[in-house]
Amino acid sequence: MSDPVVTLLTDYGPHSEHVGALHAVLVAANPRIVRVDLAHDISPGDVRFGAVVLARLCAFVPHAVHLAVVDPGVGSGRRGVAIRLAGGGALVGPDNGLLGLAAQALGATAVVVLPPFAGHAVTFDGRDVFAPVAARLASGVDLYALGTPADLGGIRMPEIPPAAVGPGVLRAPILGCDRFGNVQMAASAGDAEAAGLVIGQAVEVTGPGTRVHARVVRTFGDVAAGLLLVYVDGHGQLAVAENRGDAAHRLGARGGGSLIISVTHGPTP
Amino acid sequence: MSDPVVTLLTDYGPHSEHVGALHAVLVAANPRIVRVDLAHDISPGDVRFGAVVLARLCAFVPHAVHLAVVDPGVGSGRRGVAIRLAGGGALVGPDNGLLGLAAQALGATAVVVLPPFAGHAVTFDGRDVFAPVAARLASGVDLYALGTPADLGGIRMPEIPPAAVGPGVLRAPILGCDRFGNVQMAASAGDAEAAGLVIGQAVEVTGPGTRVHARVVRTFGDVAAGLLLVYVDGHGQLAVAENRGDAAHRLGARGGGSLIISVTHGPTP
Amino acid sequence: MSDPVVTLLTDYGPHSEHVGALHAVLVAANPRIVRVDLAHDISPGDVRFGAVVLARLCAFVPHAVHLAVVDPGVGSGRRGVAIRLAGGGALVGPDNGLLGLAAQALGATAVVVLPPFAGHAVTFDGRDVFAPVAARLASGVDLYALGTPADLGGIRMPEIPPAAVGPGVLRAPILGCDRFGNVQMAASAGDAEAAGLVIGQAVEVTGPGTRVHARVVRTFGDVAAGLLLVYVDGHGQLAVAENRGDAAHRLGARGGGSLIISVTHGPTP
Repeated sequence: MSDPVVTLLTDYGPHSEHVGALHAVLVAANPRIVRVDLAHDISPGDVRFGAVVLARLCAFVPHAVHLAVVDPGVGSGRRGVAIRLAGGGALVGPDNGLLGLAAQALGATAVVVLPPFAGHAVTFDGRDVFAPVAARLASGVDLYALGTPADLGGIRMPEIPPAAVGPGVLRAPILGCDRFGNVQMAASAGDAEAAGLVIGQAVEVTGPGTRVHARVVRTFGDVAAGLLLVYVDGHGQLAVAENRGDAAHRLGARGGGSLIISVTHGPTP
Repeated sequence: MSDPVVTLLTDYGPHSEHVGALHAVLVAANPRIVRVDLAHDISPGDVRFGAVVLARLCAFVPHAVHLAVVDPGVGSGRRGVAIRLAGGGALVGPDNGLLGLAAQALGATAVVVLPPFAGHAVTFDGRDVFAPVAARLASGVDLYALGTPADLGGIRMPEIPPAAVGPGVLRAPILGCDRFGNVQMAASAGDAEAAGLVIGQAVEVTGPGTRVHARVVRTFGDVAAGLLLVYVDGHGQLAVAENRGDAAHRLGARGGGSLIISVTHGPTP
Repeated sequence: MSDPVVTLLTDYGPHSEHVGALHAVLVAANPRIVRVDLAHDISPGDVRFGAVVLARLCAFVPHAVHLAVVDPGVGSGRRGVAIRLAGGGALVGPDNGLLGLAAQALGATAVVVLPPFAGHAVTFDGRDVFAPVAARLASGVDLYALGTPADLGGIRMPEIPPAAVGPGVLRAPILGCDRFGNVQMAASAGDAEAAGLVIGQAVEVTGPGTRVHARVVRTFGDVAAGLLLVYVDGHGQLAVAENRGDAAHRLGARGGGSLIISVTHGPTP
């Protein structure tokens, strides 16, 4: 039998002691667990982007137990849950929207509410509640032994406003920016099509900081270095980048907000 | 027999090539070693906070070999040591205070001084001395085969000035700040009690940068967003945070120094 | 038989979702793979320093499959390759110079060009092309089953201008800076000797930002805290550091460029 897999996604910061605590708890509980760090550089408290990244990455290992903690409301009474997935895996973390997209994508089949930690007033729920539960699930403990059954329909979804689409214009929230300055938008290829955006078109991108000329293209090399491109990225979502540059910096997009993409000229061959 | 566990704690920086070198040396020596990164984001040279975090986290896996390197005095003649622990584990690293709290907490039973690296003048002791020793200990080599026996009482402790407590006032060093801006102080719940701090009390927190109103509470949700709280954290230590904010930034605490907590009003119901 | 080892080196950023995607793909393909993160904090697009670090670290585990992605030209038609190494290992990544030094150091014996990803226009080649190939190589798939055989002589080398040496003066590119501010130069101990630099000598170091007095020494403790030293580092290369300080900051060296080391006085005892 192969060893169980536990993935970890948090906003604790890369190689921080908080991430180390989760790993230490998992290894202490079961040294055979194969641990996979999905991401720990989610912006502090960014439940929405955490939910997007979790859904995207846990699809690669659907049979694993996915331990996820982005939890700005710790100590405020939000509930902790463990969710059984159709593929044999599970989700463990705060029920604040973080797990919603993954539960939807992988198919939730049961959910239990975890009892709060019985110890000190200020808990470190990742270490004290969620990691121990993840380790027990990975070691074969039954979901219903870990908490109180709850309604599958009650799993919270993250709040992501839909893209607003008009003729030649599209406005959508910024989901997140990566290290290269590529800006992911909460908009799909279908949204772009509905707005009438086509390959080759010149557009303007209005960010929180400024407005910049760009072009709708297929890939980075389709614009010169230093120019902005609007494209469907490797996750199938609309994104804005600068070829060999940092679009997030150019657009002032790292703090969140929205982008507006508007057509300035017709397609050029 | 289960595979041996080696933990790693350094100030090398997350996913830096120096951390990679330690992992490569461990895997080359014994690919069956289960490697656990405890923390690599300790501020460069911060032996004191490294010692605190190490003692805290290695308690979760007391049987492991703990490889720790925060070593501002590399090349200055400080000695390297390996320490056998009561629980069957070991500590390996520079004897500059970094290992002291963990040795005390887990119970040191023997110590050897490691021979210096025989190669080039400027060594990378983590890679050339400490990681190979950690791998050998994890693979079953006896402690006394690795160095010269030394006095258990000679293991250095980190220099942490004690909290200064008076009626209604407490002054203590800042141990460290995390990504969320929570500020850990070198003071215990007992120190807070000795200073007469009680739940519900209004206080002022004076940091290196400024003075801010705060309240002594049990947990984050007990103050409104944007307000500071003084509390006993998940490690049992006194800490200052801002509910959904960054207290370290507010107090100018990231550069170190001390915090003073002083009572301004009596407890409010 | 022992489990296969795959190392990872990228400029994706520590614990970013992109790094997590590579890990997820590897574990999904073969959960027995022992994964070793060599470095993920390479400056975005810095193929040259990535190549240096890769060659240095993969020498510790020459039998492993080394997955490396620093790829500013993704989407521009550069080819992806897999390279068989004399020691039984392999290199997988873009053929843009990143793999050149490692291929040379470990001995390339065969190379194949990988087919491009058949899916969406903008690929995430690390996830979609290179990680799957690395997993298959680690699982025993033959190199020639993965791509089209190509000329061993065609493997690209990184562009590193040679050090310029004159009497009492040496100019060399900055390869990279670490978290401690130590500046690695593209110059060897032999280059330093050719320029007439000897231990004990007073020199001036001219960086992109300024000019600073330094001394040629063996190790950090040979100069007082706050002073600069020129030395041969643990990798055998010429480097500049500040004892208990940040030479990269002092010299303005983090953005790249060159350093000039010039003799100001004769050796002092």
